[in-house]
Amino acid sequence: MAVLGSTGSIGRQTLDIVRAMPERFRVIGLAAGKNLDLLAAQVKEFQPEFVSYTTAAGKSAEKSFNAPGCRYLSLEEMASHADTDIAVIAVSGAIGLGATLAAVQAGKNIALANKESLVAAGEIITAEAKKNKARILPVDSEHSAIWQCLNGEKQAPRRLILTASGGPFLDYSPEQMAGITVTQALAHPSWKMGKKVTIDSATLMNKGLEVIEAHWLFNVSVEDIKVLVHPQSIVHSMVEFIDGSVKAQLSCPDMRLPIQYALSYPDRLPNADLPQLDWNRFPNLVFQQPDMDKFPCLGLAIEAGKKGGTYPAVLCAADEVAVDLFLARRIKFTDIPRIVARVLERHSGASHPAIDDIMSADRWARETARGLTGGDNQ
Amino acid sequence: MAVLGSTGSIGRQTLDIVRAMPERFRVIGLAAGKNLDLLAAQVKEFQPEFVSYTTAAGKSAEKSFNAPGCRYLSLEEMASHADTDIAVIAVSGAIGLGATLAAVQAGKNIALANKESLVAAGEIITAEAKKNKARILPVDSEHSAIWQCLNGEKQAPRRLILTASGGPFLDYSPEQMAGITVTQALAHPSWKMGKKVTIDSATLMNKGLEVIEAHWLFNVSVEDIKVLVHPQSIVHSMVEFIDGSVKAQLSCPDMRLPIQYALSYPDRLPNADLPQLDWNRFPNLVFQQPDMDKFPCLGLAIEAGKKGGTYPAVLCAADEVAVDLFLARRIKFTDIPRIVARVLERHSGASHPAIDDIMSADRWARETARGLTGGDNQ
Repeated sequence: MAVLGSTGSIGRQTLDIVRAMPERFRVIGLAAGKNLDLLAAQVKEFQPEFVSYTTAAGKSAEKSFNAPGCRYLSLEEMASHADTDIAVIAVSGAIGLGATLAAVQAGKNIALANKESLVAAGEIITAEAKKNKARILPVDSEHSAIWQCLNGEKQAPRRLILTASGGPFLDYSPEQMAGITVTQALAHPSWKMGKKVTIDSATLMNKGLEVIEAHWLFNVSVEDIKVLVHPQSIVHSMVEFIDGSVKAQLSCPDMRLPIQYALSYPDRLPNADLPQLDWNRFPNLVFQQPDMDKFPCLGLAIEAGKKGGTYPAVLCAADEVAVDLFLARRIKFTDIPRIVARVLERHSGASHPAIDDIMSADRWARETARGLTGGDNQ
Repeated sequence: MAVLGSTGSIGRQTLDIVRAMPERFRVIGLAAGKNLDLLAAQVKEFQPEFVSYTTAAGKSAEKSFNAPGCRYLSLEEMASHADTDIAVIAVSGAIGLGATLAAVQAGKNIALANKESLVAAGEIITAEAKKNKARILPVDSEHSAIWQCLNGEKQAPRRLILTASGGPFLDYSPEQMAGITVTQALAHPSWKMGKKVTIDSATLMNKGLEVIEAHWLFNVSVEDIKVLVHPQSIVHSMVEFIDGSVKAQLSCPDMRLPIQYALSYPDRLPNADLPQLDWNRFPNLVFQQPDMDKFPCLGLAIEAGKKGGTYPAVLCAADEVAVDLFLARRIKFTDIPRIVARVLERHSGASHPAIDDIMSADRWARETARGLTGGDNQ
């Protein structure tokens, strides 16, 4: 396997799975963007054939990796290389889209943790995957849950029910929402994740993006995908079938399980490192409707998903800018949905866009979002 | 399909499914034991080829059925007839065992709602089914849930988790338990069922019998089958896999869903009569450990299941006698487990019993149970 984004949260947990069962998996490529020290350590440990990184230092940093014969490849080259059986695409942001596209065009199975690929370019990615017989194996716990529940079912489901932890601000008043600090927003109750995803979890934007991803992954209309808040993060999602039966997938919140399932599918593998639900202390499972007024990002994402075309790409890009500004303490938490909404309002989108249309919508949205923050973000 | 036990709760709901989709299912046989008026009405409506009934009136009642050309068959003949594609075995008690055995020996798929078949003779029934390529399709909501969760899975599960409503006496004190009346015990909170099953639900004997059935249906050891009390009866059971992932099946408590699934498997069929879970009012799901001291029948059944041999048949037979005595207001609710425990204590069981051994253990247990109630039931 090639692990793109090996120093991030998903990448590191993917390598944990490889460590737990070295006889089953071999890492042939590692790619990272920021943490070159960790990448160097990973290269030393896993001795891959290929390495990739994108920093200001560029390829000149190559010599620092202690792996003779380890060649430098671009993300796209690594994802589509003949020696790659499965590409784990765990780089975040729009940069992952090119790698995903290259992989599916080369007919590679991809374990997909990059949200932008399906949100911004779901129509293209799924069509290319189908054409080239590449499987898109979901890594998100919610999509993995749905995928597991659909296992063995012959008919299309009636509805998907995505569960959401609700984030740390589920019970905040509107006044408290406006005063949320970066430190508060980065403290997620259930999952350990990167900063961008953690903020997106707190705004419920993350759940909205997952609705759009689920639409493409499982060929279910956005209208038939429901979100339920479930603070314990034990039920990872559910599927309702045409006879009224519902299946749910449950586990302790640990990303290694869905990562391992994507890698081992259609098998399941015993792994003593993975936690078990404790049936002697099985919690009561609480569910509630999401508060769309308090978390406008969820509604914005669902609307963008329904509109389709370049709207989801614009949503993603505007959100990335807004979250960066929040993390830089330049805007308030409640400004994130305001900026995204403004950018979406100003967008005039193309339907069935090509990759270039998506890329230019992405650039336009980033510029527009940054422009809004020059005193125009109320 | 042939419906054995067509006037009981499961039988009537099976015919509801046929009514909802007459183009898919045809009833070729109907059999009932007690309610001959309803049987006559069913024969008139469904015009089966065969009819069966066992009453004091015997075959002489035949002429009262308004179905020219409808022949009388025994339960065994009907279950194994060449025209029967699927035998719905919904007769209750030991009488169902012969029909189940005849059906699987003839290689018929059976939708099995008769508890005694697998509890008393699981080893024989499952071996005969395997030998003759007959499928045993579970109809119980719990076993259907497990079956649905196992759908598409390649590996054996690690554990099964059977959920139990807990019955109406979940929160009773020991003093209250001793004073339970027949009327109280027949008022089940979630499911509409026959009297025997309703009392078995209230004592949790029913759940214990289901543990033994699940052991045979899914080839999982009794030790790896757990019972969790879940008063809402929304989660019908769960399966834990070797990677720690758990799947659960959920639906409104309505027996028509598992009956229909058994009949339509591997398809699912849309049926507007079946209720949908209301995601806008999705309840919190509560789980707790069963109180083995307050509900000793559960532990008795699990112990009998572990011992195997003729012990489960003895358990079943003693319970049937004890429940009859309770319904006749001759013993207290809390005497039911006392009688069953006494009979099990006195039993000296054979392992790998033949059908005759099981039948004689059944007779011995009934006699012994009746003997105990002659002043020896404390």
